[in-house]
Amino acid sequence: MRDVYVLGIGMTRFGELWASSFRDLFVEAALEAIGDAETDRLDSMYIGCMSGGLFVGQEHIGALMADYLGRAPIPATRVESACASGGAAVRLAYLEVASGASEIVLASGVEKMTDGADVTAALATAADQEYEVYHGVTFPGLYALMARAHMFKYGTTREQLAQVAVKNHYHGTMNPNAQYPFEITVEQVLASSMVADPLRLLDCSPVTDGAAAVILASEEIAKKAQAHPLVRIAASAQASGALALHDRDDITYLDTVAKASQLAYQQARITPEKVDVTEVHDCFTIAELCVMEALDYTEPGKAANLVEAGETRIGGRMPINTSGGLKAKGHPVGASGVAQIAEITAQLRGEAGDRQVAEARIGLAQNMGGTGASCTVHILEGLA
Amino acid sequence: MRDVYVLGIGMTRFGELWASSFRDLFVEAALEAIGDAETDRLDSMYIGCMSGGLFVGQEHIGALMADYLGRAPIPATRVESACASGGAAVRLAYLEVASGASEIVLASGVEKMTDGADVTAALATAADQEYEVYHGVTFPGLYALMARAHMFKYGTTREQLAQVAVKNHYHGTMNPNAQYPFEITVEQVLASSMVADPLRLLDCSPVTDGAAAVILASEEIAKKAQAHPLVRIAASAQASGALALHDRDDITYLDTVAKASQLAYQQARITPEKVDVTEVHDCFTIAELCVMEALDYTEPGKAANLVEAGETRIGGRMPINTSGGLKAKGHPVGASGVAQIAEITAQLRGEAGDRQVAEARIGLAQNMGGTGASCTVHILEGLA
Repeated sequence: MRDVYVLGIGMTRFGELWASSFRDLFVEAALEAIGDAETDRLDSMYIGCMSGGLFVGQEHIGALMADYLGRAPIPATRVESACASGGAAVRLAYLEVASGASEIVLASGVEKMTDGADVTAALATAADQEYEVYHGVTFPGLYALMARAHMFKYGTTREQLAQVAVKNHYHGTMNPNAQYPFEITVEQVLASSMVADPLRLLDCSPVTDGAAAVILASEEIAKKAQAHPLVRIAASAQASGALALHDRDDITYLDTVAKASQLAYQQARITPEKVDVTEVHDCFTIAELCVMEALDYTEPGKAANLVEAGETRIGGRMPINTSGGLKAKGHPVGASGVAQIAEITAQLRGEAGDRQVAEARIGLAQNMGGTGASCTVHILEGLA
Repeated sequence: MRDVYVLGIGMTRFGELWASSFRDLFVEAALEAIGDAETDRLDSMYIGCMSGGLFVGQEHIGALMADYLGRAPIPATRVESACASGGAAVRLAYLEVASGASEIVLASGVEKMTDGADVTAALATAADQEYEVYHGVTFPGLYALMARAHMFKYGTTREQLAQVAVKNHYHGTMNPNAQYPFEITVEQVLASSMVADPLRLLDCSPVTDGAAAVILASEEIAKKAQAHPLVRIAASAQASGALALHDRDDITYLDTVAKASQLAYQQARITPEKVDVTEVHDCFTIAELCVMEALDYTEPGKAANLVEAGETRIGGRMPINTSGGLKAKGHPVGASGVAQIAEITAQLRGEAGDRQVAEARIGLAQNMGGTGASCTVHILEGLA
């Protein structure tokens, strides 16, 4: 397999974007990535989208987007792995370039969630319809179970959960594309509406419209490009696990995140300590803690201490979610995994503006679906 | 890129399978393919499915199916390209093995359509929601427009359309997995209920539950296997085009089918005349004629003459849809493209039973989404 590089990145602003349609969002992000890459060639496209069918009554998303981007007849395939759809799209684009089948491939993600669909019901299709959803549980409820179990097992506190959201909102203030670019306090989180005990409104990522795109290319193409410092994909890994929480040995530990990250560390030949900047899938505050532990950034039960100590802030030892994360940047579910790759690429190029992490050379992006039944981990290396 | 072989095939019976759930169907087909391949190893999985969300309220289909097949933590990705979802899944599995990233990959397709969803509305999401569906048109209506245009431009007759269904039902009598394994007559087609003028009920493929699976492997693995004669994937191609009919130059000519098949002929280094057995996407009778013309099996406007002359029957010069096609075998939309590969493989192995085509060495499978905005073409070569 060949080495694969990130040639271009693009994303829309994330938010309630009522003036842009589903296809508009994709085209805007894709054109920005094409412009950023300074290339006019695309051999193939992947589009991560969780549920065009339930959100906007549109499937056949690959062909639609190729058509509206003006790129037919190139192959265009929609990929779904719930909220990990974006990460899965990046992995397939990576494999296609690595195989030698294509030289330049677009990986993108898009979701249009605010057009009137029953969002909580649509998102619930990422859980086990027959054994979880049928009984009435929704995603806040499932993550609330995980949070309660984590608090019970490790003594994690309500305040520590809130600190994750506070940190991500602080980072979001520096991201012009963020849906909620303002700071919040622990007190505000604790006073926000209860959604599913112990999770409150400000523990939850929002409902968001948006798209993101990255252009991946072979080494030969990338080394000719002059627009930006080179960023290589050092690892691309994916794992799957039990969809339903009740089928897991320990609902506080994300097996798929552990598995995918171990594969990725092995492929990139690094240990977790080498990672300079990380984007994780903080769909709820508890998720960020569980992911940090499964990534082996710390022992199980200890992640909250790192957040509390400011280690995961920009300027800390291991900055996490410099983009604002799903919490403050927003979470258009199919796009989130691709936006993570865009953020890590910007960081490794030294183009992350106010939120730049000093001397960032290795970055990691972790994206997951549902309560973690699918997970992708990408490790990127800046060659500046 | 490496050569890729078909190691195993499996499918459920197609039909109204109320005793089997969505996941049951997938597992049944996958286990049959694993058994047929006589292998216990799987490195990765792809699942083609058009709309788990709208049909059964289930997305996150990759992880779900890996879990229920007992194959977690391997990567498992759901792929969607409307009714070409199965073909797209096969192509991604092909690329993953060809790249060297994996040795043995499962490509599957599944759809559960008879559990109470509004099927016509769900299928309509394969058309352009904003510019076609919004105005009330459904798939029978879109294909009726294509049929009328073909009749007007080339003088194709109502009887000729009926002959496609008659031929496919005749083939279906020899397929134990077919939904409708009985013969019909031209008179019965012409007397069946009008659906969208000129298309009648017996011009339309049915609503079906079912799944199919194939196992693809590297040459090294395939050459060690002893269970069946070797079948190599000589070409895997995909193309995209305008989703909406009104955006096309000529609605009787399927550009994407022409493009994908040209790429496939080139990759396999053959001309269309070399193909011994073919499966095409006959979602409506008119589709089979348009596809034959775009595959360059004959000139535009001449396909009906070949059907009329019996050339596309088993025993004819170019047997098409020996499985019964979508019309008689059934059309669980995400599974159809994979079932085609299973049929062609069985033919090239000489294991197609009563419907065996004599001395079949090269086979072609053409799968498309919507009114043809996406298309995959695979060419297989039997090495017996």
